[in-house]
Amino acid sequence: MTKQELLANIRSKNSFLCVGLDTDINKIPAFLLDEQDPILAFNKAIVDATADYCVAYKPNLAFYESQGAKGIVSLEKTVEYIRTNYPDQFIIADAKRGDIGNTSEMYARAIFDYSDFDAVTVAPYMGEDSVKPFLIYPNKWVILLALTSNKGSSDFQLTEDKNGERLFEKVLKTSQKWASDQQMMYVVGATQGSMFSEIRKHAPHHFLLVPGVGAQGGSLKEVVKYGMNEECGLLVNSSRQILYADASKNFAFAAQEEAIKIQEEMKMYLLEWNKTAK
Amino acid sequence: MTKQELLANIRSKNSFLCVGLDTDINKIPAFLLDEQDPILAFNKAIVDATADYCVAYKPNLAFYESQGAKGIVSLEKTVEYIRTNYPDQFIIADAKRGDIGNTSEMYARAIFDYSDFDAVTVAPYMGEDSVKPFLIYPNKWVILLALTSNKGSSDFQLTEDKNGERLFEKVLKTSQKWASDQQMMYVVGATQGSMFSEIRKHAPHHFLLVPGVGAQGGSLKEVVKYGMNEECGLLVNSSRQILYADASKNFAFAAQEEAIKIQEEMKMYLLEWNKTAK
Repeated sequence: MTKQELLANIRSKNSFLCVGLDTDINKIPAFLLDEQDPILAFNKAIVDATADYCVAYKPNLAFYESQGAKGIVSLEKTVEYIRTNYPDQFIIADAKRGDIGNTSEMYARAIFDYSDFDAVTVAPYMGEDSVKPFLIYPNKWVILLALTSNKGSSDFQLTEDKNGERLFEKVLKTSQKWASDQQMMYVVGATQGSMFSEIRKHAPHHFLLVPGVGAQGGSLKEVVKYGMNEECGLLVNSSRQILYADASKNFAFAAQEEAIKIQEEMKMYLLEWNKTAK
Repeated sequence: MTKQELLANIRSKNSFLCVGLDTDINKIPAFLLDEQDPILAFNKAIVDATADYCVAYKPNLAFYESQGAKGIVSLEKTVEYIRTNYPDQFIIADAKRGDIGNTSEMYARAIFDYSDFDAVTVAPYMGEDSVKPFLIYPNKWVILLALTSNKGSSDFQLTEDKNGERLFEKVLKTSQKWASDQQMMYVVGATQGSMFSEIRKHAPHHFLLVPGVGAQGGSLKEVVKYGMNEECGLLVNSSRQILYADASKNFAFAAQEEAIKIQEEMKMYLLEWNKTAK
């Protein structure tokens, strides 16, 4: 998917919501456990209920891998289901991968060839040749970790070099030599609201994938205030708040209500942002 | 496996060789493609041929993931095969994982509960709470990326902070607050031979997992000279040089010969290091 197509979807849906499919077999409604593939059944219901209100889905690969090979089947079928039924959705493999060139090449194959994701999250620690193999696929995206939403993000990401440049800033600057904003986005955690203006100094045009709104405590209003740019430039993720809104047979409806709640707030910000948004 | 058990294996085998199972379906001998699970068949033959000469195996998860769910089955069966037939082998999931706490918890389940690996490689970028969930398993190990063997390692790992401390040094120092040398090792690339003495200043007692000998150009002699400590403290990995020594029906024998060649060199160093080594 191109940046322009993504932006068109954001405008037409009045939403920049990404639904995180962190599907935990221990948290899904108990009645689904009778299904042949409970994780897939849950995901299908969540996707059907929320697709009108979001522009992206983000399966978190750890949750599928924790179920071994059958978890990978659930993942593959989930991606296929979204791709077939909701072709305008942007599908992100939240994988935090990154290794030497020939290994990253294999991860890229897994994510872009074997599965048909649009994007993958990548960790920057190993540098350029660990990221580049993900960039050879046309219209596929790397979403590079910059400033994450967890407590440990301060351990290394905020370390200042001799010139006062923090590691996440160096990541933002250096990685822009590897790809443009047409193929790269950044992960920026929402718990760091005011940091978005810092980020925008270094990456004014890039899309930012923002986890940490909701369960992790970030505020959507803050993110929009400091992070929105002339092309929206935000994909805000919500996982637990939507997926586990209700543990009964009513779960998909409850998930939809949560998605609508977020989408309505987003619509308000988008209207302010651009009078041409419907 | 405890550090003492690992060391006992190194002494009894006169080897600190780790065989990297970077099994690429496009590189294994063609006649194996008739097997029901060619990757598993290849791995079994390699393991049978090399187990006497190494103390560890390191499947690289990317290579299995690139084959989708059936690749994960090959991986699970490979781990089971080694665990059952060669219980003294230390099995490393080369995965370079790392994510927020609840996600790292899921990766840990995949690697330590669902599969029965002894260790996992972890990327440090997201800090303490991304690493800790891997540390709650008794006698299981985190092998944290410190200084890697690829070209891009200089992009961020060598960045100096205000006090002249490089990022990989900060990773070594900070992470020692999270776990001792009984549960944590570090990845240090062999292409950086002389850097081992720098590493040893900060981590004198830790085991180091050393990729990059052979195909990536590192020298075993240099690694030993600068990296070996009072408890050996080294696991040196070789992948391509062993796995793809020969593409004919003779591949396992050729792999064995390569493993023996490396083990004999290691034996020499171990004899110098400790006269009590047989």
